[in-house]
Amino acid sequence: MTNYRHCRTLLPLLLAAFVLPGAAAAEKLPNIVVIFCDDLGYGDLGCFGHPTIATPNLDQMAHEGQRWTEFYVAACVCTPSRAALQTGRYPIRNGMCSGQRRVLFPDSKSGLQPSEITIGRMLKDHGYATHCVGKWHLGHLKPHLPTSHGYDSYFGIPYSNDMDAAPAKLTRKQRFWSPQVEYWNVPLMRDMEIVERPANQHTITKRYTEEVQQLIRKNKDQPFFIYLAHNLPHVPLFVSEKFSGASRRGLYGDVVEEIDWSVGQILGTLRELNLAENTLVVFTSDNGPWKSFQDHGGSAGLLRDGKGSTWEGGMREPTIFWWPGKISPRVVSGMGSTLDLMPTFAAISGAKLPADRKLDGYDLGPVLFHGQVSPRNEMFYYHGSELYAVRQGSFKAHYKTKTSYVGQKEAVVHDPPLLFHLGHDPSEQWDVAADHSEVLESIGKLRQQHLDGVEPAEDQLVKR
Amino acid sequence: MTNYRHCRTLLPLLLAAFVLPGAAAAEKLPNIVVIFCDDLGYGDLGCFGHPTIATPNLDQMAHEGQRWTEFYVAACVCTPSRAALQTGRYPIRNGMCSGQRRVLFPDSKSGLQPSEITIGRMLKDHGYATHCVGKWHLGHLKPHLPTSHGYDSYFGIPYSNDMDAAPAKLTRKQRFWSPQVEYWNVPLMRDMEIVERPANQHTITKRYTEEVQQLIRKNKDQPFFIYLAHNLPHVPLFVSEKFSGASRRGLYGDVVEEIDWSVGQILGTLRELNLAENTLVVFTSDNGPWKSFQDHGGSAGLLRDGKGSTWEGGMREPTIFWWPGKISPRVVSGMGSTLDLMPTFAAISGAKLPADRKLDGYDLGPVLFHGQVSPRNEMFYYHGSELYAVRQGSFKAHYKTKTSYVGQKEAVVHDPPLLFHLGHDPSEQWDVAADHSEVLESIGKLRQQHLDGVEPAEDQLVKR
Repeated sequence: MTNYRHCRTLLPLLLAAFVLPGAAAAEKLPNIVVIFCDDLGYGDLGCFGHPTIATPNLDQMAHEGQRWTEFYVAACVCTPSRAALQTGRYPIRNGMCSGQRRVLFPDSKSGLQPSEITIGRMLKDHGYATHCVGKWHLGHLKPHLPTSHGYDSYFGIPYSNDMDAAPAKLTRKQRFWSPQVEYWNVPLMRDMEIVERPANQHTITKRYTEEVQQLIRKNKDQPFFIYLAHNLPHVPLFVSEKFSGASRRGLYGDVVEEIDWSVGQILGTLRELNLAENTLVVFTSDNGPWKSFQDHGGSAGLLRDGKGSTWEGGMREPTIFWWPGKISPRVVSGMGSTLDLMPTFAAISGAKLPADRKLDGYDLGPVLFHGQVSPRNEMFYYHGSELYAVRQGSFKAHYKTKTSYVGQKEAVVHDPPLLFHLGHDPSEQWDVAADHSEVLESIGKLRQQHLDGVEPAEDQLVKR
Repeated sequence: MTNYRHCRTLLPLLLAAFVLPGAAAAEKLPNIVVIFCDDLGYGDLGCFGHPTIATPNLDQMAHEGQRWTEFYVAACVCTPSRAALQTGRYPIRNGMCSGQRRVLFPDSKSGLQPSEITIGRMLKDHGYATHCVGKWHLGHLKPHLPTSHGYDSYFGIPYSNDMDAAPAKLTRKQRFWSPQVEYWNVPLMRDMEIVERPANQHTITKRYTEEVQQLIRKNKDQPFFIYLAHNLPHVPLFVSEKFSGASRRGLYGDVVEEIDWSVGQILGTLRELNLAENTLVVFTSDNGPWKSFQDHGGSAGLLRDGKGSTWEGGMREPTIFWWPGKISPRVVSGMGSTLDLMPTFAAISGAKLPADRKLDGYDLGPVLFHGQVSPRNEMFYYHGSELYAVRQGSFKAHYKTKTSYVGQKEAVVHDPPLLFHLGHDPSEQWDVAADHSEVLESIGKLRQQHLDGVEPAEDQLVKR
């Protein structure tokens, strides 16, 4: 890919001429913005049914765009989910999941390997300005940070906002229910330098938003990709003064409502600069709600369980695609995944997908732009490095289950597998395995085929 | 009220002159349409978060109007819930709830008493054309039918569509999972006559819809009130050919999608006749989903339990108010109830509320038309004739609970009561009674005050 890196100014124009059929040669490549939340539940937005969290900006975004009701992340916790989004590959293929550690921690010595190609790298090589703002969580040491992975700039907390707990002796209740900035010694970085420690988390959503607005302004005359990964609503919950007490949902709602405000600011900036009709914006989150934190965690709505489990609540996320004038507004009830973002972005920009490795995504363009059904017909649900469940069409088979963070310590093996029809039974309540042996057989084959095609990479999460 | 009954033609004009401040004297009184479903769950519409039931017409209606996320019925089963809507009174005040029988049955000898004043009666006395279409369930004998209660006409099945089970020996599974028209000997009535028996339930939603469209056309030049109470999605589920297999949610979804189609037809007819801007349409349901019927029952979304319980899932309903040009579109997170429809309709029409009896509703006009907070700050949750729970502000205290139809046979008494903050915890997961003794005390007083103000009427449900 190195041959591309020195011709950033010419490439967009050259490529626009032939990669977007029907587009005028002078038409700019589309901008792309991904807004990625942390631990936001399927049921936490107004437009996904929450009764007391007000999200007027996201509701409007959904009304103008497409609201996807079966959109998956590729892991039920943070690090592997983000690795999948960035690379378009199940994390088992790049060592970003593990049978021993759930995610990367401040003592981790590794991260996303330099050989991996991120969306940032792909689009930078194609002439995009690329910027990462917010939580990275794919390695906080230099070889693994965003600016080592194709991003022109980085501004954010490199891992979870509850890591680096400061040494003060506090009960879990004190630490999380009345959080103070100094309880967590989390660093705020600009590119590869720490610029604030502990990061003032009260203003973090606001500062991320302003950073994104500045980046949009700065890049208004060239194609850009911005990956904004909020650190919230992951616990500990922090909110700016303006939103403190704003929501009927309490502190958790305040935090989500500030993120909703942020979305409004960003879409507003795009509109103000006449960029809206040339910008695809995607809103989603990394995994389900952290239910063991009670009302400081979110809601998966009608879905079962949450973060840390392969039930739907752990891996299905409230997702919105927005591109005024390009995307025909509707609710999409069909599968999509963060794995599909890379191929979709490649298709709309003409960027080249990595050809030397197995990717797991689909171009969602036919659904977004042409009213077609989703090309995705299967999903593999990993728990760490182990495949727990497989969905094919409307059916999902659980080979193993484990209730997220609460209660159940050991995974339960299901033989025969549990089988649910997610169309009829999105809450996974009624096992229909006995009536559908042919479905179980078909899913079994698909599972084996997938496993045969996976060569697990060296586990990077255990290194410390 | 009898003095009003003979001046139907003059009254609308006379009243319009002074009851609607600012309205031109010649302006017509607003039309009112209530669309009331049967056993539809809080989570069963697209705009309330269901992933596989497509409700584009209701979603659009919600976008153009107000979507209410804390709207209550006054009972967790059919008959008392309908009595409350029609009279604006808790059913304990008019004998339409019971400690012995949940609802009225085909062997019932009584129903809503002639002394009760329905919305139909109130508006008819005010000069409206009044029509009832669909399920009545307030008595199928002559003194209790809609045309004895202020409605000019009635067309519908007078009670639940699973009553009058035909004598064929069938298992519950056969009867409900592969329903045939002849399994239920339910009558279809026009006014006071049975016109079809068993009613062909496959076409019932379609026929109700066409009846309403005809009534709108017939009354286009005079104010009308139409109460359309669908018999579905109550089990047994029936759907017309056009919608059979239409939904990814299976038969239940097909049925809801046909109701969504029906809503589109009705709003379309109002638009076509230029009546939309003079018509208030309210969409809601009678109680939560019947969960013991598995995927033939609906979903309460993130709310707990369903039909037959005083948990939120039993009594909170997906509700939409629509009146183009009058209602400012938004999501309303504040309490409302079917009890409030009568006072609200009285306020917008100038009709006179019954002055000789206790009503339990509020005029919701300030919320609908003026962006104010709801005047309703409390809700009383009855289970049969017994008060199980009380909500005041965001807090709900359960004095007694009973899990709907499944499992738990005896009610559980809670002393101290369970206390939930429904703003922070809409799913009623975390009892906060220990931290809020002052709230419990306040709710206790409110409860006593309410009970002191209630004189239970003679139970009409036990009569057979």
